[in-house]
Amino acid sequence: MNDTDYMSLALNLAKSTLGQTAPNPVVGAVVVKDNQIVGMGAHLKAGEPHAEVHAIEMAGEKAKDATIYVTLEPCSHFGKTPPCSDLVIRTGIKKVFVATTDPNPQVAGKGIARIRNAGIEVEVGLLQEEARELNRMFFYNISTGLPYVTLKTANSLDGKTATAIGESKWITGEEARKDVHVFRHQHDAILVGVNTVIKDNPSLTTRLPSGGQNPIRIILDTNLRTPLTANVVTDGQAPTWIVTCSGIDEKREKEYHDLGIKLIKLPEKQIIIREMLKVIGEMGISSLFVEGGAEVHGSFLKERAFQQVITYIAPKLIGGKMAPASFGGEGFETMEEVVSLKIKEVSRIGNDIRIIAEPK
Amino acid sequence: MNDTDYMSLALNLAKSTLGQTAPNPVVGAVVVKDNQIVGMGAHLKAGEPHAEVHAIEMAGEKAKDATIYVTLEPCSHFGKTPPCSDLVIRTGIKKVFVATTDPNPQVAGKGIARIRNAGIEVEVGLLQEEARELNRMFFYNISTGLPYVTLKTANSLDGKTATAIGESKWITGEEARKDVHVFRHQHDAILVGVNTVIKDNPSLTTRLPSGGQNPIRIILDTNLRTPLTANVVTDGQAPTWIVTCSGIDEKREKEYHDLGIKLIKLPEKQIIIREMLKVIGEMGISSLFVEGGAEVHGSFLKERAFQQVITYIAPKLIGGKMAPASFGGEGFETMEEVVSLKIKEVSRIGNDIRIIAEPK
Repeated sequence: MNDTDYMSLALNLAKSTLGQTAPNPVVGAVVVKDNQIVGMGAHLKAGEPHAEVHAIEMAGEKAKDATIYVTLEPCSHFGKTPPCSDLVIRTGIKKVFVATTDPNPQVAGKGIARIRNAGIEVEVGLLQEEARELNRMFFYNISTGLPYVTLKTANSLDGKTATAIGESKWITGEEARKDVHVFRHQHDAILVGVNTVIKDNPSLTTRLPSGGQNPIRIILDTNLRTPLTANVVTDGQAPTWIVTCSGIDEKREKEYHDLGIKLIKLPEKQIIIREMLKVIGEMGISSLFVEGGAEVHGSFLKERAFQQVITYIAPKLIGGKMAPASFGGEGFETMEEVVSLKIKEVSRIGNDIRIIAEPK
Repeated sequence: MNDTDYMSLALNLAKSTLGQTAPNPVVGAVVVKDNQIVGMGAHLKAGEPHAEVHAIEMAGEKAKDATIYVTLEPCSHFGKTPPCSDLVIRTGIKKVFVATTDPNPQVAGKGIARIRNAGIEVEVGLLQEEARELNRMFFYNISTGLPYVTLKTANSLDGKTATAIGESKWITGEEARKDVHVFRHQHDAILVGVNTVIKDNPSLTTRLPSGGQNPIRIILDTNLRTPLTANVVTDGQAPTWIVTCSGIDEKREKEYHDLGIKLIKLPEKQIIIREMLKVIGEMGISSLFVEGGAEVHGSFLKERAFQQVITYIAPKLIGGKMAPASFGGEGFETMEEVVSLKIKEVSRIGNDIRIIAEPK
């Protein structure tokens, strides 16, 4: 095992906790002494110890003069836990490998400076790209204040989400539908339009075998048409927020309030996606998983307000000029305007194909 | 090198001639003596020597007591060339490996029987699946009399072939567009609808750097609307056939005849795809590459009249409820009716994704 192997292990530790650390990033740490791994750790949950703490505790006395590999710069501030940079110094660690600095303005190089000032060697940048990719949602959110937005679509090979008369169960297979739950789990909130609530009455929970916390459910609903009997209103599985516009009926508003639903009233008459993102970002939503329908996707596309697209393609041909597609609305008129993507991953999920891409 | 390696080499020789042997299958042969390759060959063109002949000629006197690996059963009949089974016997070959039998009723096991009757050991079935896959167009055609049909589509990640106002240049990248020419080259004929001719005025030739024969161009044109000035009518790059219906204007008919265009008149008032395929199959078309547009694809889909779909997906999002998709027409109404596919290959062609699938 060399330095890269140890950092790679630390990244894998971090990766395993994706979806359970918000609003914190995922972080992994490995402590090595005399070519032996003496400590391993990951940050498990906000408010709980950081990765370095777990790894150093596991190493115990062996941490002295050891090398630590940590995927993100050790923190330098008192948050919910004391600063990890101090712990590293106090423990007598001899060398620190840091994959990437922390863009959080409260850290941003200060952790590394602190350790270096104590005379400890720090090397920054080992597997940096992988480390940034892993926390790209966190990095995006911390530097913009906006949630990182993932658009999820699922369609047949010919781009249809239903037949011409609206049949859509099921386009993709069971494995793909399960896979969606993994991604839901990795986001703070799931968003759908009110038409999807009316038509499909989804619960929008993460039905993972291992359980786990359900993301907040956000409904875009300009005219407050969400049924009071909808699953997202009544099932109590997760908080539900309804984003609506000003000028709605006060009595109607109270009905939702009484059922424990949070109403977010935007000032315009129509929902502007970027405005909505700013508001929910301020309310602490750092990542958003958008599941449609077509009009909602169309709005996010038109405003170019997304950081990632996950498309499941089922090996089916549905056909039909009137059969709906994943993106509705007006779309772009010219090829110059259309959103160009960079494909990050193409894989097979059961019988389906999953494509993960991000805007260029 | 073992038996599988030699047969694999023979398959690669065969593969290299895909698209230039019609109406014959592609065939490769390798002659081995004392663990040395002493002869290699492939069938290059209908009317020219078969793969075994080239390989045995290359081996010369070394062919005596050698082993031959051939991807398709040696023929037993006098066609344009004398039977290869006789050549194998006469040469003194000791053992014959055959990947698969020949479904051609004129051969169909008779070649193998002839060789065995001469006391030569024959082993059938080594890499059989690969060998059948390689000649699947030929196998399909010889056993049904119909052309093997490939539907080609190209769309954005959200399933669009153009923007809502019709801009479509270009969805896919240069590599994908070149790749299409390779597939055109592997089919006897290319088919488009008259609307595509009117809108895009394509030449439908295979612009491969190496040249090569252009497939026949077939236009579906119920009401004889193909412009007399269209490239496919005037450029003389390849024969053009227009499939139309009975009851067309005789004067108009003569105008096409005078320009060297073949008119195929089907008896019904509308073009029925399966009827058309039967007619062009009888005229010697063993494989057909269908390039659309949406209505034509929709008709092939609705009649389930295809053996393969090749879809290029460009990393772009176009959006728009009114933006067209690859398959038009009515499509299927229920999820039970839709065509389920088996995905054979997912690959990257430049920046695009290519998916090759066949109906289950």
